[in-house]
Parts: sequence; structure tokens; C-alpha cells
Amino acid sequence: MFQSFDSSSDPSLASARVAALRAWLAANGLDGFLVPRADEHQGEYVPARAARLKWLTGFSGSAGVALVLADRAVIFIDGRYTLQVRKETDPAIFGYDSLIDNPPAKWIGQNLKSGARLGFDPWLHTTGEVDTLKAAAKKAGVELVPLETNPVDAIWEDQPAPPLTPVEIQPVAFAGELAKDKLVRLAAAIEEDGATHAVLTDPSSIAWAFNIRGNDVPHTPLALGFAILAADGSHRLFMDRAKFSREVEAYLTQLAEPHQPDTFAPAIADLATQGARIALDPVLAAEKLRMLVEANGGTVVAAADPARIPRATKNRAELEGSRAAHRRDGAAIAGMLCWLDRQQPGETDEIRAVEALENFRRRAGEETQMPLRDVSFETISGSGPNGAVIHYRVSRATNRKLGDGELFLLDSGAQYQDGTTDITRTVPIGKPSDEMRERYTLVLKGLIGLSTLRFPAGTRGSDIDAVARLALWGHGLDYAHGTGHGVGSYLAVHEGPQRIARTGTERLREGMILSNEPGYYKEGHYGVRLENLIAVKPAAQIEGGDIAMHSFETLTLAPFHRRMIVAELLSPVERNWLDAYHAHVLAEIGPTVHGDVLAWLEQACAPLGAFPAKV
Amino acid sequence: MFQSFDSSSDPSLASARVAALRAWLAANGLDGFLVPRADEHQGEYVPARAARLKWLTGFSGSAGVALVLADRAVIFIDGRYTLQVRKETDPAIFGYDSLIDNPPAKWIGQNLKSGARLGFDPWLHTTGEVDTLKAAAKKAGVELVPLETNPVDAIWEDQPAPPLTPVEIQPVAFAGELAKDKLVRLAAAIEEDGATHAVLTDPSSIAWAFNIRGNDVPHTPLALGFAILAADGSHRLFMDRAKFSREVEAYLTQLAEPHQPDTFAPAIADLATQGARIALDPVLAAEKLRMLVEANGGTVVAAADPARIPRATKNRAELEGSRAAHRRDGAAIAGMLCWLDRQQPGETDEIRAVEALENFRRRAGEETQMPLRDVSFETISGSGPNGAVIHYRVSRATNRKLGDGELFLLDSGAQYQDGTTDITRTVPIGKPSDEMRERYTLVLKGLIGLSTLRFPAGTRGSDIDAVARLALWGHGLDYAHGTGHGVGSYLAVHEGPQRIARTGTERLREGMILSNEPGYYKEGHYGVRLENLIAVKPAAQIEGGDIAMHSFETLTLAPFHRRMIVAELLSPVERNWLDAYHAHVLAEIGPTVHGDVLAWLEQACAPLGAFPAKV
Repeated sequence: MFQSFDSSSDPSLASARVAALRAWLAANGLDGFLVPRADEHQGEYVPARAARLKWLTGFSGSAGVALVLADRAVIFIDGRYTLQVRKETDPAIFGYDSLIDNPPAKWIGQNLKSGARLGFDPWLHTTGEVDTLKAAAKKAGVELVPLETNPVDAIWEDQPAPPLTPVEIQPVAFAGELAKDKLVRLAAAIEEDGATHAVLTDPSSIAWAFNIRGNDVPHTPLALGFAILAADGSHRLFMDRAKFSREVEAYLTQLAEPHQPDTFAPAIADLATQGARIALDPVLAAEKLRMLVEANGGTVVAAADPARIPRATKNRAELEGSRAAHRRDGAAIAGMLCWLDRQQPGETDEIRAVEALENFRRRAGEETQMPLRDVSFETISGSGPNGAVIHYRVSRATNRKLGDGELFLLDSGAQYQDGTTDITRTVPIGKPSDEMRERYTLVLKGLIGLSTLRFPAGTRGSDIDAVARLALWGHGLDYAHGTGHGVGSYLAVHEGPQRIARTGTERLREGMILSNEPGYYKEGHYGVRLENLIAVKPAAQIEGGDIAMHSFETLTLAPFHRRMIVAELLSPVERNWLDAYHAHVLAEIGPTVHGDVLAWLEQACAPLGAFPAKV
Repeated sequence: MFQSFDSSSDPSLASARVAALRAWLAANGLDGFLVPRADEHQGEYVPARAARLKWLTGFSGSAGVALVLADRAVIFIDGRYTLQVRKETDPAIFGYDSLIDNPPAKWIGQNLKSGARLGFDPWLHTTGEVDTLKAAAKKAGVELVPLETNPVDAIWEDQPAPPLTPVEIQPVAFAGELAKDKLVRLAAAIEEDGATHAVLTDPSSIAWAFNIRGNDVPHTPLALGFAILAADGSHRLFMDRAKFSREVEAYLTQLAEPHQPDTFAPAIADLATQGARIALDPVLAAEKLRMLVEANGGTVVAAADPARIPRATKNRAELEGSRAAHRRDGAAIAGMLCWLDRQQPGETDEIRAVEALENFRRRAGEETQMPLRDVSFETISGSGPNGAVIHYRVSRATNRKLGDGELFLLDSGAQYQDGTTDITRTVPIGKPSDEMRERYTLVLKGLIGLSTLRFPAGTRGSDIDAVARLALWGHGLDYAHGTGHGVGSYLAVHEGPQRIARTGTERLREGMILSNEPGYYKEGHYGVRLENLIAVKPAAQIEGGDIAMHSFETLTLAPFHRRMIVAELLSPVERNWLDAYHAHVLAEIGPTVHGDVLAWLEQACAPLGAFPAKV
């Protein structure tokens, strides 16, 4: 299994660890220290070595920060983790506050005394974060002290070593462009930004630029490292050679000078000494890098990671790979949905569903000689009220049977070498209520709204987020998350900067892959989420139209559950889309499944009128 | 007439004036000078004294900036003014560039030599603008020099004096809240911002806070001045006493210490000397104020003008006033639309239409004892291809007959003491083409989309801008402007921060008045724009709904032209809204009009099916 259902958090360990940290702080003349859930690369997943927040506190969530003072300690989490943090950590040691409403920068101003010295590890905070912290600290008269040594590392005796998984080359058949050509484009972009160099700190950007993948963190095929790209083409890659086979080393050496990771900081300092203008992305780059540049006479150019937009706009081979990955994944999902429909209410549970789904995916991978490399994130498998927990993660403690009259929400994804998938379907167990069906249909209308949308080239994700909400809004309902996130090409399932959300200020460009996942959540009762991946494409020319329009190609191939659909709530356009989509799913997936599953799929994909919903 | 159709620009005057400016710059060791179309208050309209850009160059547009160097001069304008600027100014003296794509900050970097000294008047640029200019100047090695004297003033011999129109009190029956109560709220907001004082530089904010109006600039009832509000309630108002009657002076003296304008800068300097923390709005406050604070030991707190949100969220009396103003304005518009329908194609022209409309408004004002105080902006009266010019302003040179088979776009507004109006209707002259009718109907669908929308409390204008575009997008069409701007209460017809546009990042709150004005423009042929004012209100509770929803109340009362509506393109919901709206218009306006106009209105407001469109 690519995921575990055991909780590895033990709240009782924190007492001694926090005491040790406090002793270290006192010995070093500090009044407090910030422990973010972040490593030097600011990715969604961190290697075991960098799981400092979890080691210190027990909290295992994917976002948060602890602030440890001599007499208090606070963990800041967002709304997803308000319950979880209390289960995983000791409330006698920690207080809790909101990462969104009252983040450390704000908290400091209200709680720290003027003159206090607050330490932080400048490798673990971005320059943008530090700007915010600095402004707050200045206002409060607090001294923000960047530390040379991370105190958690100093007291963590059995801290794991950095991961050294093998690097593999991503074949150009899937990448669609030679790494050397990508690097030429990046060099030009650096020049355009007015810089001599740019530091790639995001391993997704390095993976994309060099056409390599690794296995250093869970669920995202990353090889951790840094790269210094130069406008003049003299690139350097800082990655442990122990990760390279001879073939990989030979390949990479043609693209960049390989260097060991411990020479990275000195190399930045050295470039700065020579007067380099070094581009750092304010939302990605560690404060430590800015300090190194500025302390050594260089100039920091604040500029977005030059690989972000090229990586986000998938080329023809990447889109073709994604389509193949979705056909494979669609066969697995068809098997899974058929299996679920065969279960009696109360017969199976959330964990067994996750196991079954991974097995369907493994089989689909084996049958197509494209093995399942990983799940793209930990499956959200929520029955009944667990379905209303937006970022639910099933454990042995929370596992529930799939009971009669409940909805079962299954949000999962796969990593195949040709593409990353992410799909959510919501399945009725036994007989759903009228309210469930109505709200499912409203969510489906939102998904179809985006699926059928045409929009001018240059439209931003934030401009169209509401399109997926209009049907719910009309009924006094909404969902408290964005409608879509970017998705990588055999890379991170949550990829920026493309996004369909209030915060999605990036223009939607041809080739960007995003999720389309409206939902509805009734706390304590049930959740509905429906998710397809979509790719931005030029819209077919409209007769009489004035301007270049874009639309979405739907990549995900899996039917929606007809027993959940209230057909009268759909407009003719919506019905036509749904019937055409189902026919497309059957045409693409039908030839790859057999027997029971094929029979199930044929029925699931029939036109809406053909098999009236019997509920 | 509240507006003129004569061009007051004479391109031949610029030669001597620019030469005099250059001589002044040379004598003062400067290589260039920036002349923005702005005064110290950054409003949409400036008094004659501050029309420096127009005096120097001839350009009369409402936005732009000239950069005069020893050997070149460039005027930066936005897309609205690319044609106009060439007509009003001498191309032998001026070059032209885009204020949006290549603004001065960018232009400086590409064109000025390192070491150049560029002067600017720090009263005429906001701190935000200067931050941008400074960053660009630093990069280019250019020295940005704030000047004590504006060189245009130095060479402008017959420069008009500052306006001294009488200040009048806005009765609390219309304002809905006593000024002293508003000032208490503002003082609390200043405290909350962590400041000891806030400077109100926007005369709209002063007008709102003190419940006063004036007539210092065209079309917006402003009394120019500054106020320094204090967290401890000791407010000061800097406004020429010559504007006050004895009664007004007595009224204002109860609210704040009155001071002459020439004591404003010394007062800021004095507060700074005492260590004050002075809040300045980065998008409104002059750089000069920041300089005064920082040079004298004070602290600048960058914070939004504390009056902006309270001013934007209209109270019950202001909304009631707006409804009354719209009933009055609706009677005038009914008269106007009836008159237009009575004209034969080719019989009237754009200017006569403007004159007729102003007369209808004057009459409606007289009949209700609420005289027309001004038009709220210069009427956009565009027939045929002129209708496609989004910010068209008719002059004797451009005046066109309203010809057969053309569309006539009429966008206008009024200032009454109880409210500000802004309405656009597009009228067919003779027989419209099928394409015109289709596109009119798509624009109408957009307007109805917003009119019928329900949205969660907390939604921003940018989140719903697309709702008014979806119908056009589906046909490959769009419009190149925002969907709605904020509107003041007997104040600026373009009021921030509320806005329905990509840039509308402010949350829509109960009581905010906005325009709802989608359009379609076929360059060289015709334009369609339909505009109602709308107010944010709580939506009726929806059965089964979870969350607090908002919706819009439509304030504008005028029918849409049924010969333009392709009924088959409307959904049942859209048709129902239109019929209900027309019935509402008839119920509200019918009792206030008579004879021909009433007969016309009854027909115009009949249900869509009752009088089928005969075209």
C-alpha cells in the first residue's frame, strides 16, 4: 500500500522534546523559536528528516507552524486541522490558534514583549514570509533572529538522514521537450527578468527543467535539490551524486555542472561576491538565500520561478500522456465503482475501499505495462459524516462502514509515468434521500458549468470560479474551498500557479491542467464532491464571434451515478453534455474492461433517459 | 447646460508653453518633469487651476500624464484616448505612449540616461505611485527630484485661483447619520489601524464625514479641502473659510477646528514633530504628506482611507434617497425614450439628444421640488459607430445624426440632492439588424444574470464579474470594460472601492450601490450598453439554504426596448425577471408621467408576450 491507516503521532513524546528545545533556546539567549511544517523547498510533502513540526509536537498535518516560547507554545493550523491537532498533540503543552485569522505575524504583535528575541531557521521560511514577520516584529519591538543551526536538529538525536532515492530520467516521449531546450528557454527568461542567475528551489521545477524524477518525498516523484541557472547558460545542479546511476550522471552532466548539496550555499555566496543579480521567487525561495546574496554584495531580483508557467502549460506529449493515464485510471475507477455497487450496505468500510481502489489501479497499471508508481495523495475515503470533512484522511480510529442511506465520497489519484490523476466521485449506498440527490445534482450542474464554458483567452481562474457555484448559490448553498487546483505531469497533484479559485490570479493558458471539483458539505451528515481533471484548450471558432476563446477538455473518464441525478434540474444543455460525456467514457473505457465491469459501465454510461432513475 | 460640446483645446498653444517649461527646468538643473492629470485630491475631476496637463499640452482627457524632457515630450494615455490625444495636441511637440503597457515608470527605465534628474510635484502623485517611480528610477540610475514649486504654476501667468464655491450642509434626512456620529466611528477606526491620526485627502470622504457638499469641480458636488482626523476626536478641517456661510461655519466648528488651507502642511509637520503616527492611504495620499511626516520625525501608517467603506455602504436614508432620485430620473428617462421613439430617423442628432435629456431631467426635478443639481458626468450620446467608442463624448466636430437602421447609445446620469443616478439604454433608430438584436439580447441576459443572482455574503465584485459575460462568451463575444463601478450618494458617480470587475477585490457589502452595465461594441459599426444601478441587500431566506446570501435590488427604473429583444434567447427565469421589472417600472413611474409618455410607457412595460416585437 502506498498509504497507511495508522496514526504515527504520540502526544506523550512532546513534553521532553519541548523541554529540550526550551533549554537550547535559553542557552542561546532566545525567547522563542518558530517551527514551520516546511523544508527548504516549500513543497506539499517533506522528507522524514524535515518533519520537525511532527517530531516536536505530534501534529501530522500538511500545513502549520509551532511557536515555542519559554512559558507557552502555540500551534497555528488552518480550518482543516482544528480537530486533528487536538487529537495528535498534548493540550497541556500546546495552545492552538488560526493560521489564517491570527497567524504568527499577528500573534507576535499581540503577545510578545518589546525586546523579545525570536529565532527562526532562515532555510525554512520564504523571503515573502520573512518580510511579513519582519514588519510585525518591527512594529512590536521584537527582534527576529535568523539562526545558523536549527535547534530542533540540534536536539533530535535520531533525526533521519536526507533521502537518497535514485534519480531517473523522464523519457522525452512523455516530457515532450528535451531538457536542453527547456534550459535555453529558462536562460532567456532569466535575462528578461534582468537577472544574471535564477535559483530553482522548487524540486518540481528542477524535475521539469531537467526531465528527471525521484522518490524523495511521498506521493510526488521529486528528487530534492537546488539548481542555479544562469542567463549565459552555465547551469549548476546541486543534488547528491549518490542518487545518480552512471547513466543519469552522464545525462545530467551534459545539462549542468553537478555539485554536492553542501556546496550550494557557498556557491550562492560566491556568485554574490562577483556582483551577480540573482532571481529568487518570493513565495518559494528561502530567506537564507536572500541573506547569502545580500551579505556578499549581490543583488536579489524578486521574480517568479521561471519554470512555473512553462511547467504548468503542458505540451502535446504531456497532454497525450495525461489522456493515456486517464484511460488507464478510468478502467480502474470503473472496476472500483462497479465493485462498490456490488457491496451490500454495511458490508465494506472506508479502509477496504481504499485498498480495493489501489488494487484496481495496480492491476490497470500492470495490464498496460505502465505500473502504478504511487497514489498522488492519500485517498480521501469518507462515508456518511466523514464525507463532509473536506480533507478527511481515514485511519483505523476513524474508519466507518459504508452504511445504508449514506453517501460515500472517494477522492483519489494516481502517479503513472505518463501522467498524474485526481478524481472524486460520490456514491450512494442504498437509497439516497431527496435532499442528497438535489444537492448532488446542483454540484453536478456546477461541474458541467465549467465543462461547457467558453471564455476569452487571458481569463484568470478567479474570474470563473463562481461559474461552478451558481447553481448552489441559487439554493442558498456553497462550498468552502476553491473549485480547482493545477495538476502536474507526473509531478505534484497540487501544482501552481494555475488555479480556479478566488486566489487564482494567474491567467489560464492553453495546456494548463486543472481540477474541476465543486462540492457540497453538510456537516455531521454527508458530503458531495465531483471532480474531473480538465485541460485548457482553444475553443472551436464560433460563427460571428469576435475574439479568441478558450474552453476545457475533460480528461477524467468515469461516469456519474445516475441514481443521484435529478434529471429535471438539468437544462437541455447540461443533459446533452452529460449524455455526450457518458458516451465518450464508454467509448474510451469500454474496450479496456470486461465482463461484469463492462456490463456495469454500459448501464452507467447510457443516455440519461434510457434507464430512468429508480430510487 | 451642464456640459459643453465645444472643444476648448488649441494645439497651437503648447509650443510656447513647453518652451517656457523647458527653460524653467534648465534654469533649475532638471532634465525633465512629470505633469499628471491630477490634483492634490486624486479625484476624477480637477478644478480649472489644476488642469495643468490640459493647459500645457491641450489634452483634455480625464487620465494621463506628460513627461517633458529637454529634447522630447511624451503624453501617456490609456486606450480611451489614443485618438483624442492626437486631435487635441501637436504631434510635432509630443510623442504618445500607453499609460497601461508602457507607463512612465517603465518608459524612464528604457529612455532616460543614468544620472538624469527628473522632477515631480509631490502634491500630485500618491505615495503608491512614487514607490513605483522610485523603484524604476533607482534601477535606471535616475534621480527623482520632488520639487517645492510646480514649474507649470511658475510659468502659467493667468492660472485660475482655487475654486471657492459655497459649502452647503447635506441634510441628515438624506445623509441618514449625524456627522458627529460618523466622526466618532472614524476615530475608532483610526485607533484600530494603530495610528494617532488619519488624513482625509479625498474630498468625497470629507463630504461624507462632515455631511457637506460643494461645487468646486464639475459634476461631483465636492468642496475641496483636507481633514486631519484624530483617534482622540480632536479633528481639524482645512478648507477656505470664504466657502462658508455663517451657518455653515457654525455647523462645522462644532465638528472640527476649521483652518485655512495654507496651514495644512505646517500642521502635518507639527504633528510629526510630536511623534504622531499618521495614517495615509497609499492610493490616495500625496507623496508630499509622507515627506512631511517622515522629515519631521513622525511615522506613516499605510492604511486605507477610513471613510471609504462606511461611505460605500449606504444607510437606509441614503438608499431611500436613491430610490426617490431614481423615480424622478425614471420619469425623465421615460420622457426622453418616448421623445426618441417619436423622432424620424435622421431627424435629430447626438447633441440635441443630450440637450433634450437634460431638459427632461430639469423638468422632473422642478416637478418634484428637487432640482437637477448637475449631470453626474458628461453624457455619452453615441449614434452608429460612435456608440462603439466606450467613453465617447460628443462635440460639434463629432456630432452625428441618429440615422435609419442604427443603434443609439445613451449613457447619462444626474445629481440630485437625494441621490446620484447613472443609466444607459440603447435605442434602435428605424429597423435594427438581426445581429444587433441578438447581441442586444445577449447583453440583456448578462444584466439579468446579475440582477437575479444570489451570492454568499463576503463575495467580492471580481468573483461575479463573469456572470454578466457568460451569455456573450458563449457566442465568442465580450466587452473590454468592467461590469460595474460604485456610485456615491449625491457624490461621485464613480466611487470606490466597490466594483464589479476583475479588479474588484473589495467584498460586496449590504448597502453598496453599483452599476450593472454589460455591453457589446462592434468597432466602426455600433455599440450596445445596458446599465442599471443596483444595491446590495440580504437575499430572501431560501428554504433549505445553509448560509447568509446577498442579492441586488435594482434601483434604476426604465424599460428596455422590446424591438431589440429576441425573446427566444431568454430563459423562462430571464423572461420572468424582465416582465416583473417592467411591471415594477410602470407601477413606480406611471403615476408620475402623463399623456403621450404614459401611453408610451404602458406599451414599453407590457409583458413581453403581450405586444410581440414587430420588426
